[in-house]
Amino acid sequence: MGDEQAVLFANEAFYQAFRDRDIDAMDAVWSRRAPVSCVHPGWGPIRGRAEVMESWRNILSNPESPVVESRAASVSVYGDAALVTCFERIDDTYLIASNMFAREGDGWRLVHHQAGPTTATPPPDSDPTPGAMH
Amino acid sequence: MGDEQAVLFANEAFYQAFRDRDIDAMDAVWSRRAPVSCVHPGWGPIRGRAEVMESWRNILSNPESPVVESRAASVSVYGDAALVTCFERIDDTYLIASNMFAREGDGWRLVHHQAGPTTATPPPDSDPTPGAMH
Repeated sequence: MGDEQAVLFANEAFYQAFRDRDIDAMDAVWSRRAPVSCVHPGWGPIRGRAEVMESWRNILSNPESPVVESRAASVSVYGDAALVTCFERIDDTYLIASNMFAREGDGWRLVHHQAGPTTATPPPDSDPTPGAMH
Repeated sequence: MGDEQAVLFANEAFYQAFRDRDIDAMDAVWSRRAPVSCVHPGWGPIRGRAEVMESWRNILSNPESPVVESRAASVSVYGDAALVTCFERIDDTYLIASNMFAREGDGWRLVHHQAGPTTATPPPDSDPTPGAMH
C-alpha cells in the first residue's frame, strides 16, 4: 500500500472508531510516540495524549454524539508526516477537518485533528473516503 | 536557532504578513515545493499554491480584512514537518488555528492553515508569539 493510501486508511479508521463509539479503536488511531493535540469544533486546543483521549472518552460515551462520515478526503505526504483535509458529514450538515498523521512503525498515527464549521459542501458525487473499511 | 523557535518564527512571519497586508511577504511564507492547502474560517478547502495565493490576494487587498495577532502559540516538530496551534486575536474575539509547516532549505514554510471559531480564550497572560518580529 502506498503512503497516500495508507494515510487515507488511517483517516478512515479514525472516523470508523468515531462512528462505532469504540474508545479502544480510537486510542489505537492516535500516536503513542509523537506529541498529539486536538481542536474539537468550537473548543480550545487540547494538548497531550491523556487529555486528548479523555476528550474522546467523553464524546464517545455520550449517546447523543453525532454520527460522522468523511467525504472528499484529500491527502498530502510530507516525508514522515501527512495531512488529510476532508469534509465531515453529520446528518445533512458538514464540518471541515484537518487531520495530521505521523509515520509510526508500519503505519500512520493521528497526531492532530481540527474540525470546524464550513458553509461549503463536498462535490455531490464524493463517496466515503477511499480505503473505507466496509 | 532550534527547530521549535524557527517554526514559531515562521508562524509569526505568517501573521506579520497578514497584518501588513503584504502579499509578497505572504507569498514567501508559503511552501514552493510541497503541496499547500488552506481553510479560511467557514470556507471550504482551497488546494494548490495558485489557488491559495489567490485567496490571500483577495483577503489582503480588502481594506476591511481583520487585523490578526497570534496568541499562545504551541509548536510540535515531527521530523521535517511541524505544527503550530494558536489562538488568533481579532479585536476582542478569538479564532483557533492549526498551521502546518515543512522544512524547506534553511527554513520552514507554511503548507497548511485552518482557522475556525472557538469559545475558548488564551491564558490572560499570553503574549504575542515568541519570536515576534517587533
